[in-house]
Amino acid sequence: MKSFIEVNADSHFPIQNLPYGVFSTNNQPNPRVGVAIGDYVLDLSLLEEKGFFENIIDEGNTVFNKSSLNHFMELGRGIWSGVRKKLQLLLSKDEPQLRDNDDFRKQVLLPRKGVKLHLPVKIGDYTDFYASKEHATNVGIMFRGKENALMPNWTHLPVGYHGRASSVVLSGTNVRRPLGQIKLPDRAPIFEPCRQLDFELEMGCFIGIGNERGEPIPIEEAEKHVFGMVLVNDWSARDIQSWEYQPLGPFLAKNFATSISPWVVPLEALEPFRVKGPIQDPKPLEYLEQPEPGLFNIQLEVHLRSEWMSTPKRICSGNYQSLYWSIAQQVAHHTIGGCDLNSGDLLASGTISGSEKDSRGSLLELTWRGTEPIRLNEEEQREWLEDGDELTMTGWCQGEGYRIGFGEVVGVIEPALDREQVLRKKDPTYIGN
Amino acid sequence: MKSFIEVNADSHFPIQNLPYGVFSTNNQPNPRVGVAIGDYVLDLSLLEEKGFFENIIDEGNTVFNKSSLNHFMELGRGIWSGVRKKLQLLLSKDEPQLRDNDDFRKQVLLPRKGVKLHLPVKIGDYTDFYASKEHATNVGIMFRGKENALMPNWTHLPVGYHGRASSVVLSGTNVRRPLGQIKLPDRAPIFEPCRQLDFELEMGCFIGIGNERGEPIPIEEAEKHVFGMVLVNDWSARDIQSWEYQPLGPFLAKNFATSISPWVVPLEALEPFRVKGPIQDPKPLEYLEQPEPGLFNIQLEVHLRSEWMSTPKRICSGNYQSLYWSIAQQVAHHTIGGCDLNSGDLLASGTISGSEKDSRGSLLELTWRGTEPIRLNEEEQREWLEDGDELTMTGWCQGEGYRIGFGEVVGVIEPALDREQVLRKKDPTYIGN
Repeated sequence: MKSFIEVNADSHFPIQNLPYGVFSTNNQPNPRVGVAIGDYVLDLSLLEEKGFFENIIDEGNTVFNKSSLNHFMELGRGIWSGVRKKLQLLLSKDEPQLRDNDDFRKQVLLPRKGVKLHLPVKIGDYTDFYASKEHATNVGIMFRGKENALMPNWTHLPVGYHGRASSVVLSGTNVRRPLGQIKLPDRAPIFEPCRQLDFELEMGCFIGIGNERGEPIPIEEAEKHVFGMVLVNDWSARDIQSWEYQPLGPFLAKNFATSISPWVVPLEALEPFRVKGPIQDPKPLEYLEQPEPGLFNIQLEVHLRSEWMSTPKRICSGNYQSLYWSIAQQVAHHTIGGCDLNSGDLLASGTISGSEKDSRGSLLELTWRGTEPIRLNEEEQREWLEDGDELTMTGWCQGEGYRIGFGEVVGVIEPALDREQVLRKKDPTYIGN
Repeated sequence: MKSFIEVNADSHFPIQNLPYGVFSTNNQPNPRVGVAIGDYVLDLSLLEEKGFFENIIDEGNTVFNKSSLNHFMELGRGIWSGVRKKLQLLLSKDEPQLRDNDDFRKQVLLPRKGVKLHLPVKIGDYTDFYASKEHATNVGIMFRGKENALMPNWTHLPVGYHGRASSVVLSGTNVRRPLGQIKLPDRAPIFEPCRQLDFELEMGCFIGIGNERGEPIPIEEAEKHVFGMVLVNDWSARDIQSWEYQPLGPFLAKNFATSISPWVVPLEALEPFRVKGPIQDPKPLEYLEQPEPGLFNIQLEVHLRSEWMSTPKRICSGNYQSLYWSIAQQVAHHTIGGCDLNSGDLLASGTISGSEKDSRGSLLELTWRGTEPIRLNEEEQREWLEDGDELTMTGWCQGEGYRIGFGEVVGVIEPALDREQVLRKKDPTYIGN
């Protein structure tokens, strides 16, 4: 499959991908839906206006001239697939409709560099899983010792917890180092900027079609509810986390920011890269038994660039397929007690760590809790993230001569707020009343 | 203060209260905002249409002809207070505007029995705290023994975690017993209906005005962000919880349903009942130091009625003021690392347990994990909730000759889904594609 648009072999956005995002332009500042193709964005709101989706989406139902993908995501797999086919046809090498209509082509195909991207989805609830056995084991060894590394429940169910939806932000948003309570040995807790700021290499999927409360989603049907995937950086404050997390789990250590990549890759685009997960032993309970292979071969990398570096250094190289629990298992488990998922919910994988040392998806693991710093160059090393650090995650499926890419999720660390300023006393102008 | 509407001394909804809710009627099925007064609902959408709030709310800003309180809640304390004053004036004994205009009065004052109530707020994120020392201690003793009952962090910070917003439901919604993984001693986990279904007596507050991400709310300003309060029943599946909760906290054990009462009592109505919390030792860090008394004297009761009982039995009698951590402390802590709160967020207190045995706010504690069943009558006792049980929570502040009440939050337990039906294999009609 080839497009009339030139796309390099290492581009993340060939005609086989067509990920969805929300963008705006200077000339037309209303956020709307587009797909990325090579160095361009295809404006779906304009195609919709011109009737290109007439036989696919019900007349009168505007879904692309919207500030989020939610309206489109609610339509379900049949329509997602129909729109994708239509777009692949329109963009294909041999199709003249766009290719040979200079005026219209320039209207609907905008240089990607010139558009502003927005958070693509209005996220209702955000759930974070803990699906990497290597990650859970590494963390377990560090916090509880080798003997009790994996909790007894871990191999029986996809452990997960509710995250904070409001603080999910778009790639490129700066991340301020949080203030919080830190407990040093033999001292009362102190209120200070986080000293152990970390990233977590994750991927997330967006729910397209939800379920009714009280009606679990059977595992065979689970992927039908999933629209697509993004990269996720679940920023973590390790010192705040270790003091606060018992017994109810991480809270402030995670809710200051979670960054996602802007382009949502349709699950359908990932089909050629579907792979089996590991043999699960013990065999999961029936509601978690997945008949089809449920993972994807997605190469993942993390790059770090300090303020002093001109080019980033790769600090982690992993693969999504190293996970133990699949998306289908996560969806089936999430709903088995009756919890309802809704269009726009984000389900993240948890940190993706492989078995190799350089495939560990967090500084916590890469530096073994700060005891084995990683070297960036001759001058610099890192135990944890420092102010000014730019952290970039990227990922792609490698096809023959093309890539299905996820673009990247980037964030720069800003210094913490001034402690005294935060503790400022009564300000009569505060929120105006 | 007296209204021209007759209100009994034990009514929850005198003119001093005026809680906000969302209702609809058969004749006019669009959900809209009203306040409860005695046995009536005052239709604020109609008052708004007639211009009654002209000098209070900006012209053209319709906030009451809406299906949630969010639009009104976003306006801030000055306007909440202005509207409240206006309503108290309109409803007062000596004010003829409504009192003496029969036609109009009948249009705007509807019998409460005849209206349908809706979830009052569109909830963005839901956070549940763990603010009762007695509750945390009781649970700690049961799960970890007397020596390690309270975690070391508990007296230093209001422990909390992210709950599931989508499954917050209105009082009166039936609650289906969840299926889930249960781990019995010396056996592999099984997939069965929950055997240890429980309630949790909580109260929650709704955020009216949020904060920007990265901008913590100082504790002195925290209550300005809070619109009002409701009763919360945080239904819990104890057997599912004890197997799943480590290390990331409760997940499926809590996300099948959380019920709230329909009427949101404005914080302003609770002012006469403000009381100091306990002396906090150790003294909290500066960002959690609250200059003003931060709790409220709210009497709370829980009633249980089995299918066989004609009248419910009171099984718990507590008070909101027994909490250790206040709302202001919860808000200040929640945002101290930069997390943003938004209008419509729900912050619940966690189970409210007092020092007396009958003031414990869950069956877990009342029956000491099922080992000391409570007696309902000569025939029946309870370790945990059974199918058909109706659980009702109620609460009020007792003034001189009047009550500021919260109404009630009720739920009836439905039997679990059929296990085999849930495990049904491929259904070709599933979500239509």
